[in-house]
Amino acid sequence: MNPADETFAETIRARLGDDILRPVEPRYLEEPRRRFAGQAGLLALPRTTEQVAALVRLASEVRVPVVPYGGGTGLVGGQVMVDGPAPLILSLERMRAIRAVYPTENILIAEAGAVLADIQAAAEAANRLFPLSLAAQGSCRIGGNLATNAGGVNVLRYGNARDLCLGLEAVLPSGEIWHGLGRLRKDNTGYDLRNLLIGSEGTLGVITAASLKLFPRPAGLGTAIFQVASPEAAIDLLALARDHLGETVSAFELIHRQGLDFLAEVLPDVRQPFDTPPEWSVLIELGLPAGHEPEAALEALFVAAEARGLVSDGVIAQSAAQHDALWSVRERIPEANRLIGSVSSHDISVPISRIPDFIRQGGEAIAALGPFRVNCFGHLGDGNLHYNVFPPKGHDRTEFDDQRAAIKRAVHDLVHEFEGSVSAEHGVGRLKTDDLERYGDPAKLTAMRAIKSALDPRGIMNPGAVLSDA
Amino acid sequence: MNPADETFAETIRARLGDDILRPVEPRYLEEPRRRFAGQAGLLALPRTTEQVAALVRLASEVRVPVVPYGGGTGLVGGQVMVDGPAPLILSLERMRAIRAVYPTENILIAEAGAVLADIQAAAEAANRLFPLSLAAQGSCRIGGNLATNAGGVNVLRYGNARDLCLGLEAVLPSGEIWHGLGRLRKDNTGYDLRNLLIGSEGTLGVITAASLKLFPRPAGLGTAIFQVASPEAAIDLLALARDHLGETVSAFELIHRQGLDFLAEVLPDVRQPFDTPPEWSVLIELGLPAGHEPEAALEALFVAAEARGLVSDGVIAQSAAQHDALWSVRERIPEANRLIGSVSSHDISVPISRIPDFIRQGGEAIAALGPFRVNCFGHLGDGNLHYNVFPPKGHDRTEFDDQRAAIKRAVHDLVHEFEGSVSAEHGVGRLKTDDLERYGDPAKLTAMRAIKSALDPRGIMNPGAVLSDA
Repeated sequence: MNPADETFAETIRARLGDDILRPVEPRYLEEPRRRFAGQAGLLALPRTTEQVAALVRLASEVRVPVVPYGGGTGLVGGQVMVDGPAPLILSLERMRAIRAVYPTENILIAEAGAVLADIQAAAEAANRLFPLSLAAQGSCRIGGNLATNAGGVNVLRYGNARDLCLGLEAVLPSGEIWHGLGRLRKDNTGYDLRNLLIGSEGTLGVITAASLKLFPRPAGLGTAIFQVASPEAAIDLLALARDHLGETVSAFELIHRQGLDFLAEVLPDVRQPFDTPPEWSVLIELGLPAGHEPEAALEALFVAAEARGLVSDGVIAQSAAQHDALWSVRERIPEANRLIGSVSSHDISVPISRIPDFIRQGGEAIAALGPFRVNCFGHLGDGNLHYNVFPPKGHDRTEFDDQRAAIKRAVHDLVHEFEGSVSAEHGVGRLKTDDLERYGDPAKLTAMRAIKSALDPRGIMNPGAVLSDA
Repeated sequence: MNPADETFAETIRARLGDDILRPVEPRYLEEPRRRFAGQAGLLALPRTTEQVAALVRLASEVRVPVVPYGGGTGLVGGQVMVDGPAPLILSLERMRAIRAVYPTENILIAEAGAVLADIQAAAEAANRLFPLSLAAQGSCRIGGNLATNAGGVNVLRYGNARDLCLGLEAVLPSGEIWHGLGRLRKDNTGYDLRNLLIGSEGTLGVITAASLKLFPRPAGLGTAIFQVASPEAAIDLLALARDHLGETVSAFELIHRQGLDFLAEVLPDVRQPFDTPPEWSVLIELGLPAGHEPEAALEALFVAAEARGLVSDGVIAQSAAQHDALWSVRERIPEANRLIGSVSSHDISVPISRIPDFIRQGGEAIAALGPFRVNCFGHLGDGNLHYNVFPPKGHDRTEFDDQRAAIKRAVHDLVHEFEGSVSAEHGVGRLKTDDLERYGDPAKLTAMRAIKSALDPRGIMNPGAVLSDA
């Protein structure tokens, strides 16, 4: 493999013009958690799919590594290449067009560089909903969302990025363009290349555009935070909510007292839902069709849940402002976590019915390692918890750097024992390649390596991501 | 490649016992449309995943082709190998256990040989819904449903087989077992091998078990047939229904007068919904949560649609018996089609908003070929039409055998021009390999061949299916 050097730059300029390369600003070499620092090679900003194809072909000819770059918001280092020959960073930021909206078909076609929030807005302008929703939506780009199969708060009802995509246009490692931007709900002609590229984190090709599913906008949104007796009670409440309300339950987020305490400590402007922070609570969101009262539905749910001893207190939003206030409790917990500073963060999933035991045993395993604080919260309805471990009050995370590996190992071992995943929604990137080797299924790993070699025989696409040896 | 002969049979018996092989009865060599006749090699009926793995390993060692066999109900000949060395038919029929049901998690784990109707029943026994529903459900098996990514009548709300599967256990062409039976809603660790196997029609491995999604059972089911002014009006009605009722619209089936006429002609016991068969009508099904009146919801929809000039008459089921009666109109049309005898049948999809133009131009293209009758019906909400061409009244299909190729070509060319799919839900099998070559995206075909060679380098898995040269 060869570096993206000045000679390669001249080849690119000769082929595609001077405008396509830009200096590599530092932001392209950083990632949000600052665990990885990328190398500066070249930065290309193509304007068309044909230019992406030409860049990949050129890189393939001279075997220069290519790192596809979206919004740079990924949390596992998939977007920065830390060693090996300096890469060609291929940013899709100039390809941000919404190519078309088909309201009758509930379909929107966006280029890979379109910012998620812009897609949400375009859907809303057509009186439709694009439900992918996550903290980075103001800066992440749909190509990256798909390459990492992003999750977020609406997975419970609408699925993750994978489930929201009908078709792709992509440049394969050979430089060939796959024109797979279908507007079809059903198409059984051949292998599922779309889902193979989704979640492959730029190692099997560059997504250049996507055909996305839109949904009716729920006529009425209801939001509440209920105190629950325990994680078990939270799970029973979810089942009860679905019995009452079917798939209209669009979010079901677990909140632990530790998160509320952190908010009180470092973000005191966030209005707390209860006078005394409860040990466990859940944020519920309903999206109901026209003619239904979300507040009444949530009140009825509360009454039924209280009768079963599942909930003890609750706040139901009565206005859009209250809806926003309740959501900000949930959404600002990650910010509070960052301000406190975790020793180790984990994006894990376990089978839903095993969550209570996992939380119990996880607490014991962490306590055995030291007086750490655990903030366990997140997408309970999906079995996806963010399990973050913090230093004792008054201490800084850096004091515990040497314990990070042991903490991570303890949590991930337990997740594996519980038949869970050590990367529920963030992906593998460069952070979890070792975990994939340790916990991954051997037959699947063999198949993954065979697929990688078959589609990218020259090994140029995002080397070191997902498979450390590829 | 070598045939599955008596020498190979002795190897298998020595390794796995006498009980595993059975005589190849004729039904294993037939398929419902009788377009393909399979060759008799050997028939193996494994009882465990380990036995499946051993069989595939043995076949790989001596390069004997393996045809995975489910319920045998596929419509494109994927289950019968017509030429080349006689295959080992590997039927999953003895592996039909429901291994576990997790009502709290809305998950059911079934072996590949479980009959779809048995899975539906097991879900119902746990007060849950497994929504995959299609005509062959009494005999098709879930392994085959997944291998072909089956569709059916509930795709509009719940998706196709792919969307209903959380994890797989499978034997790869190497004979390795992939243990991917997760109960996780979110797992972003590596490439999506699950979706690669789903829809690969037995050419990349043998599915042995699946982890399936369950749903709440709707508290109230509503069914109606509305006369619509045109296909355009049907599409507008669907949009209106979704505006009013969100995702509770679970089926939306287009019916043409031709189908009703066929019913009257050959299945007169089916009760017709209207005195005079309308040119176009739609069957709508709603699944509503508790506390909602499906009949009232359908009446309100009818009133709103009538005000817009979309509908002119309608029948709303007022009882379970009426619900069944309305559904039988839709469900018995394929049987009537078979009794009439089509010259050519097509399982196609086009972008939903282009359906009216497609129907118009399709009618003109067929009329140019002769005085044929067209029955165009099916899953309008998914853009999936069954477009079947019949001889003129009083004539037999066999009189037009020499025109079949021209009819097929005319329909498929038009589908391609409309950015549609020539196999919406039935798959490619052996029937449509030429179509895949003709209409498929070249980059995707290259990638498919690379994947096939990478995962099945000895070419033993269902040779000739999907990719005719693999």
